[in-house]
Amino acid sequence: MAKPAIILVRPQLGENIGQAARAMLNFGLEDLRLVAPRDGWPNRQAHPPASGAGRVLEGAKVYQTTEAAIADLTHVFAATVRGRGMDKPVVSAAEAGATIRNLTAGQAGILFGRESSGLANDDVVLADTILTVPVNPGFASLNIAVAVALVAYECFHEGREVTKTTTRTIADNGPGPAAKQDLIALFGHLEGELDRHGYFHPPERKPPMVRSLRNLLQSAGLSKQQISTLRGVIKALGRGMKK
Amino acid sequence: MAKPAIILVRPQLGENIGQAARAMLNFGLEDLRLVAPRDGWPNRQAHPPASGAGRVLEGAKVYQTTEAAIADLTHVFAATVRGRGMDKPVVSAAEAGATIRNLTAGQAGILFGRESSGLANDDVVLADTILTVPVNPGFASLNIAVAVALVAYECFHEGREVTKTTTRTIADNGPGPAAKQDLIALFGHLEGELDRHGYFHPPERKPPMVRSLRNLLQSAGLSKQQISTLRGVIKALGRGMKK
Repeated sequence: MAKPAIILVRPQLGENIGQAARAMLNFGLEDLRLVAPRDGWPNRQAHPPASGAGRVLEGAKVYQTTEAAIADLTHVFAATVRGRGMDKPVVSAAEAGATIRNLTAGQAGILFGRESSGLANDDVVLADTILTVPVNPGFASLNIAVAVALVAYECFHEGREVTKTTTRTIADNGPGPAAKQDLIALFGHLEGELDRHGYFHPPERKPPMVRSLRNLLQSAGLSKQQISTLRGVIKALGRGMKK
Repeated sequence: MAKPAIILVRPQLGENIGQAARAMLNFGLEDLRLVAPRDGWPNRQAHPPASGAGRVLEGAKVYQTTEAAIADLTHVFAATVRGRGMDKPVVSAAEAGATIRNLTAGQAGILFGRESSGLANDDVVLADTILTVPVNPGFASLNIAVAVALVAYECFHEGREVTKTTTRTIADNGPGPAAKQDLIALFGHLEGELDRHGYFHPPERKPPMVRSLRNLLQSAGLSKQQISTLRGVIKALGRGMKK
């Protein structure tokens, strides 16, 4: 199965992107994805710190949205140092690494936030699982390349006696793991229908309502078949309303 | 017992020293020792990348020789990425971390070499044990701050043995686990609306369709709150259709 993708969401400094690329290649990862890098792409500043991992930078793909960057992935982790009070399973980097190494189908990806502020809640919502690195609570601010390195190390490192984690696996959901694009299309379909039906009111309540629905659907661990069933349900229920 | 010392032997760039200090403090380490830093000490370039770990830099001790830097230590590891053909035990970073965490007396230290060439054999000779980080053999050049971070992480990380169960439980989904009656009421609500919207056709397909929807909702592990959200969604979507 494919090695995990590393997705840097709105990274700021090219230098950090270069260091992250180097750390990826140290542990055999090459699928680098950038969501809306602040200084554009390509960025010359990324190359010196990549120090020999230039091919990871050259192969990097750029996306405007996190949704687009994860569209083809089947298992998405959000790397955070603090709990987000979200309704999602939380695993350590070691557990995530073990889960990813044991995947037999699909491709995982790990979202990392910008240097100054980490991942936005709207990005975390798109993940199946929150990945935390255990750090000194008195000084939790990890350099982004260090965070990428630790996670890549845990994905690579097979020497450790891996305590089998009980994370839900693809197999729980039957054949055909859903690519994130299917889930994202389901979000769009449901939210569009709900909009048409006046569900989101008052309008300022829409963002938290959307997040809570997305979290609910995300945490359900839907298979491709189940997503298709739900889209049929939404279509049927929406039918009474004129376009 | 004392936490391990991090000893940078003949480091070149102040910036790397700063990043290493930050990574140390992320994992609770503060005893930084510098052997003959190329650009002298203190070094202003170290401070910006230390990013809040200034006190580690300010407390750093400088030595002219590796021998002096390790004089008070009881267990010394030499961090290398390649075997040195030396007659010393070789352990992984994870094993070294476990050993260091389990020390009951004395203080351990870990030697890291200069950025361009790693540790000299004369430094490795001074160590009890060689510590290797498993890396991609095709691209083994680790940034020094990344190497320090990985080792500090392994020394810090005590949660590993504890398998945190990540199985979704009802409790994961917020307060108020759903009683089965709530779930059954959701089934009834959804199926009733779908009936009104002509979803179940041909009629003989209704039983398997209902089973598959119920399985999907059942396996989603919904909380009471989530069931209530879904009932709001069904109500909104059904609104267009006359009773």
